[in-house]
Amino acid sequence: MKVCVVMGSKSDMEIAKKCISVLKEFGVDYEVYVASAHRTPQKVVEIANSDADVFICIAGMSAALPGVLASHTLKPVIGVPVSGKINLDAILSMVQMPPGIPVATVALDGGKNAALLAIRILAIKYPEIEAKLKEYMETMKEDVEKDSEDVRSVLL
Amino acid sequence: MKVCVVMGSKSDMEIAKKCISVLKEFGVDYEVYVASAHRTPQKVVEIANSDADVFICIAGMSAALPGVLASHTLKPVIGVPVSGKINLDAILSMVQMPPGIPVATVALDGGKNAALLAIRILAIKYPEIEAKLKEYMETMKEDVEKDSEDVRSVLL
Amino acid sequence: MKVCVVMGSKSDMEIAKKCISVLKEFGVDYEVYVASAHRTPQKVVEIANSDADVFICIAGMSAALPGVLASHTLKPVIGVPVSGKINLDAILSMVQMPPGIPVATVALDGGKNAALLAIRILAIKYPEIEAKLKEYMETMKEDVEKDSEDVRSVLL
Amino acid sequence: MKVCVVMGSKSDMEIAKKCISVLKEFGVDYEVYVASAHRTPQKVVEIANSDADVFICIAGMSAALPGVLASHTLKPVIGVPVSGKINLDAILSMVQMPPGIPVATVALDGGKNAALLAIRILAIKYPEIEAKLKEYMETMKEDVEKDSEDVRSVLL
Amino acid sequence: MKVCVVMGSKSDMEIAKKCISVLKEFGVDYEVYVASAHRTPQKVVEIANSDADVFICIAGMSAALPGVLASHTLKPVIGVPVSGKINLDAILSMVQMPPGIPVATVALDGGKNAALLAIRILAIKYPEIEAKLKEYMETMKEDVEKDSEDVRSVLL
Amino acid sequence: MKVCVVMGSKSDMEIAKKCISVLKEFGVDYEVYVASAHRTPQKVVEIANSDADVFICIAGMSAALPGVLASHTLKPVIGVPVSGKINLDAILSMVQMPPGIPVATVALDGGKNAALLAIRILAIKYPEIEAKLKEYMETMKEDVEKDSEDVRSVLL
Amino acid sequence: MKVCVVMGSKSDMEIAKKCISVLKEFGVDYEVYVASAHRTPQKVVEIANSDADVFICIAGMSAALPGVLASHTLKPVIGVPVSGKINLDAILSMVQMPPGIPVATVALDGGKNAALLAIRILAIKYPEIEAKLKEYMETMKEDVEKDSEDVRSVLL
Amino acid sequence: MKVCVVMGSKSDMEIAKKCISVLKEFGVDYEVYVASAHRTPQKVVEIANSDADVFICIAGMSAALPGVLASHTLKPVIGVPVSGKINLDAILSMVQMPPGIPVATVALDGGKNAALLAIRILAIKYPEIEAKLKEYMETMKEDVEKDSEDVRSVLL
Repeated sequence: MKVCVVMGSKSDMEIAKKCISVLKEFGVDYEVYVASAHRTPQKVVEIANSDADVFICIAGMSAALPGVLASHTLKPVIGVPVSGKINLDAILSMVQMPPGIPVATVALDGGKNAALLAIRILAIKYPEIEAKLKEYMETMKEDVEKDSEDVRSVLL
Repeated sequence: MKVCVVMGSKSDMEIAKKCISVLKEFGVDYEVYVASAHRTPQKVVEIANSDADVFICIAGMSAALPGVLASHTLKPVIGVPVSGKINLDAILSMVQMPPGIPVATVALDGGKNAALLAIRILAIKYPEIEAKLKEYMETMKEDVEKDSEDVRSVLL
Repeated sequence: MKVCVVMGSKSDMEIAKKCISVLKEFGVDYEVYVASAHRTPQKVVEIANSDADVFICIAGMSAALPGVLASHTLKPVIGVPVSGKINLDAILSMVQMPPGIPVATVALDGGKNAALLAIRILAIKYPEIEAKLKEYMETMKEDVEKDSEDVRSVLL
Repeated sequence: MKVCVVMGSKSDMEIAKKCISVLKEFGVDYEVYVASAHRTPQKVVEIANSDADVFICIAGMSAALPGVLASHTLKPVIGVPVSGKINLDAILSMVQMPPGIPVATVALDGGKNAALLAIRILAIKYPEIEAKLKEYMETMKEDVEKDSEDVRSVLL
Repeated sequence: MKVCVVMGSKSDMEIAKKCISVLKEFGVDYEVYVASAHRTPQKVVEIANSDADVFICIAGMSAALPGVLASHTLKPVIGVPVSGKINLDAILSMVQMPPGIPVATVALDGGKNAALLAIRILAIKYPEIEAKLKEYMETMKEDVEKDSEDVRSVLL
Repeated sequence: MKVCVVMGSKSDMEIAKKCISVLKEFGVDYEVYVASAHRTPQKVVEIANSDADVFICIAGMSAALPGVLASHTLKPVIGVPVSGKINLDAILSMVQMPPGIPVATVALDGGKNAALLAIRILAIKYPEIEAKLKEYMETMKEDVEKDSEDVRSVLL
Repeated sequence: MKVCVVMGSKSDMEIAKKCISVLKEFGVDYEVYVASAHRTPQKVVEIANSDADVFICIAGMSAALPGVLASHTLKPVIGVPVSGKINLDAILSMVQMPPGIPVATVALDGGKNAALLAIRILAIKYPEIEAKLKEYMETMKEDVEKDSEDVRSVLL
Repeated sequence: MKVCVVMGSKSDMEIAKKCISVLKEFGVDYEVYVASAHRTPQKVVEIANSDADVFICIAGMSAALPGVLASHTLKPVIGVPVSGKINLDAILSMVQMPPGIPVATVALDGGKNAALLAIRILAIKYPEIEAKLKEYMETMKEDVEKDSEDVRSVLL
C-alpha cells in the first residue's frame, strides 16, 4: 500500500508536505519525486512504472504532469493544480483530459484533499484505512463544532 | 464490486449512458439514480449509504451533488461537471471542494473518463479489472493509429 | 425577528462581523454559527430548522452552504461568496442554483449588503424596521455628499 | 401582497413568464412592466414607488436595472441575469453591488427561482404562503423521485 | 469648455488625480464630485444636468455610474472601470451597455486615457486643444525613445 | 461633419450597417472602409489621415484596429468589439489600451451605440445634432413604454 | 525542408487542411499524423524524432500534445488550440508552458497562421520561401483592398 | 544571426533580461529596444526592417506590439504577454491574431521560453546552435533530477 507524490517543480514542496502529512497520519507508505512532463519525460515514465497504488501529481501552469503520468500507468492518478498568476490554466489543464485517460482533479493547492482522496481509494481494499478515515472525519466534525463555539464566544 | 451513478437531473441521461457503457464493457455492476443535493437531500444521504464501492455524480450549474454525497460516505466520489450556459460554474463547484471532503473531478461532460477512473480505482483491488483495463488501453492506442492511417489516406 | 448568520469556516469571521454590525444597528436579534455543508452536514440541517426568519450564509470556494441550508428550510437564504484565489468559484456556486431552491446572492465579501438585504426582507413585516432603513439610507446619502465635499476640497 | 416583475427588454418575456407562472400557482398578485434603467430612468423610479412588496428585475448585459430600482425603494429587489453572448456581464453587474444597496441575485435566466425567492420572502409574513411552499417543495421532491424511476427503467 | 469628473467612491481619488493632471496640462476647466448611481441617484441626475461638455465617471464593481449618468445627459460619457477583486465586473458593467445609451469605456484604472479621450473630443471643436494634443503626443514619443536609450545603455 | 467607419474584415458588414443606419438618421456624412491593422497597415495610416471628425473601428479577435488607427490621428476613435468564439479577446484588446492612446470602447457588436457615441461627440460642436439626439432619445423612451404596454397586454 | 502536422484527434482534420493548403501553396513538403500525448505517447516520441524542420500540433481541451512533442525534439513546435465547450482550456494549456520547453501558440483554430508561422521560420534558411512569402502578403493586402471596394459599393 | 528584443515599456526590462541571459548563453547576437505600437508606431516599422532573424516582443495589456511588428516583417515574431491586473488581456491580444499575420505566443512573463523558441528557430539553420541546445536540455534534466534529490532528502 503505497502512494507516490510527484511534484512538477521544487517550488511545489509546501503542497506536497500537506499531502504527506495526511498520508503519515494514516500510516500509508509514500514516495516523493520532482519530475516534469516536459523537462524529464523519461523520468515520468519510470515513476509511472513503479509499484505505487495511487499517484498524486502536483503541478501548475500548463499542468501536463498527471495526464502524461496517467498515460503510462493503469493506477488512479490524482491531480493538484497549483496556484499562480492565472489559476484557471492549471485547473483546466488537469480537468479537461480527453476521453480515455482520466485525471482525478482536486482543488487549487488542494494537497490535503488529494491525500484524502487517495485514502478513500485505498480504503476500498484496506478495511483498516476505512476505519481510520471514519475517525478522521469525526475529528474534523468536532473541529468545526469547536470553531463554532469559538466564534460564538467572540460574536455573541 | 459496484459503481453507483447519480444524476442531478433527468437531462443528464446521455452522459450517464456513456458511463454505463464503459462499466458494462468491464463487467462492473452498477446502480443509477436521479437525486438532487438541493431538491432531494435525504435521498442523496440514502444513496451515499448504499453498498457501492465508487460513486459517480453527474451535475451542472452549482453542482453540489458530488460534494454533498461525499460528505455522507467514505467511498471515493467522482464528479462529472455538465456543460450549460457557463460551464465554469459546474467545473469550479466540483473542483474547488474545501479541505476534508475531496471530489475527483473529471472533464466537462466526461462520462467516459468518470467510468474509466472508477475502473482504475477498482483495479487496485480486482486484478481481473486491471487486466481488462490493459487491453482497453491497447485497443484505444490501435484506434488512434487507425485514425492516423485514415487521415493520412485523405490528406497525403 | 431573528437573523441567523452561518459561516463555512472560522476564517470568514471578519465578513460575519460586518453583517452583525448592521443587524445590531437595526436592533435585530441574531444567532451565529460555523457549520460546513461538507464537514458537518447534520449541523447545517439543525441550524436550518432553528427559528430564524432569514439565514445569511458566508462561504468560499465551492460554496455549497447556502444551497444546502436552503434545501432544509422554507425561509429566505442569503449567500455571501468569500474571496480567495479564484473568486468566480464562490460567486458561481452560489448564484447558479438549480430551479427549485433559490439563494439570494450578494457581492463578494458583501457582509454589509447581506445584512441590509435581510433588513429589507424583515421590513416587509415589521414597519419599525422599514422606518429605520429609511433613515439609514438617508445617512448613507449624506455620507456620500460629505465624501464629495472632502474630495472637492482636495482636488479643486 | 404583490410582486412586481420588471423586464429590461421585451425580449426577456419568456423568463418573466416562468416567474409569473410560479406567482400564479401561489396565488400571489403581480404587476409586470418593461422599463430600462438607461432608456426610461424616470419610469423605473415610478415603478420603485409602487405598492409591491417585492421586486423582480430581469435584465441582461450591463444589468443596472435591479440596482437602480433598489436605490429608489426600501423593498427587497431580486435580480435575474439574462443569458447572452457573455453571461458573466449580467451576473457580475447584478451580484457586485456596492455596499448599501443590495440586490438578491439568482441564476442566469432563473425566472422560476426568482419567484420562489419572492415566495420565501412573503412567507415570513403570510403563513398561508409558507404552507403552500411546503407542499410545493414536497411535489418537487416527488418529481425528482419520479424522474429517478423513469431513468432507472431505461438504464437498468 | 469643461470636463466633469465623477467618482463612485472617495477611494477612487488617485485615479481622478491622474485625470485632472492631464486636464490641467491642457488648460481645460473641470469639476469633480463623488456621487453614486445607487446611493445618491438624485445627485447623479443633478450632475448630469450641469454645463460640462464631457463627463468622466470612475467606478468599480457593478459600475452603473457612467450608464446612469449617460441616461440623463446628451453629452459624451467616458467610463473608467476601477480595479478590485474581480476587475471583469467593472469592465463588463461599463462596456456592455444596452443599445441606445453608449458609454465610452477606457482601460482599468485608466484615468489618464479617460482625460486624453475627453481632450480628443474637445479638440474637434477647439483648435487650440488639438494643437496642444499634437505636441503632447510628440513629447510622449520622445519619452518612449528616451526610455529606449536608457534600456539600451543598461542591457547592451 | 463626417464619421469614418472602418471594418477589420468584410464579415463585420452587418455591424457596420447598424452604425450607418444611425448616422443616416442623423444626417451625418460617413465614409466606410475595410482595412486591417495587420494586413494593410499603410491603408490604416491613410484612413487615419483623412478628414473625418470621429472614427469607428469594428474588429474581432485581437482587435488592434482602433488602437493602431488612434496612434495616427488626433480625432476620437470608437472601438466596437466583434463577437466570436471567445468575445473577451476583442473586448479586452480594445479596452485595455496603454496610457497615451485612448480607445472609446462600446459593447460587443454594439454598432448602434458606436454611432450614438459619435453623435454625442459631434453634438458638442453642432447644436442641430444635439437637438436631433434629444428627439431620438424621446422616441426611444416611447418605444420602451410601448413595449411595456405590449407585454402587459400579453401577461396581465 | 519538411513540416510535420500532428492532430490530437481525427476530428481536427478541417484545421489540418487549412495548414496543409498553405504549405502546398508554398511548395513545402509535409507529413501528417493523428497522435495523442495521452493515448499514444510512444507514437508522439517517434514522430518527434522524425526529420521534420518544424512541427505543428493541433489539439483541444487539455492540449498537452505540442508540449509533450516539444520535450522530445529540438525543432520549433507550433501549437494550434482547437475550439470546444470552453476554449480557454486549449489556449492556456498550450501558452502556459513551463520554462525550458517553449510552444509557439497561435490563435484558436488558427490552422492557416500555424502554417504561415512555419513558413516564416523556414524562410530564415530558404530565401526562395521568403520570396514567396513576400508575394503572399502582397496578395493578402490586395484581397483586403478588394473587400473594401466591395463593401463600399454596397454601403455607400 | 541576430535576435531583436523589443519591449512595449521600460517596465518590462526584467523579462527582457531573462531573454537576453539565454541568448548570451547561446552566443547569439541581440539588439534591444523600447518601442510602442501605439506611441511610437514609426519606430516599430523601423525596427521591423532591421536585420534581425527573429523578433521577440514583450508587452502587456492590449499587447498589439508583436502583431504590428509582424505586419512589417517577414521574420518570425515571438510574443511574450506581460502580467498585470487582468493577464488574459495580454495573452488573448497576442494569441488571437487574425489569419495572415501569425504571432508565436509563449507563456505570461515567459522571457526564458521566448529566447529558447528563438534558439530552436535559429537551430534549423545553424547546427552549432542545435548542438548547444541539446546540451542545454541535458543540463535542464539534470537540474530537475537534482531538485528531486533535494526534495527527497527533505521529505523522506
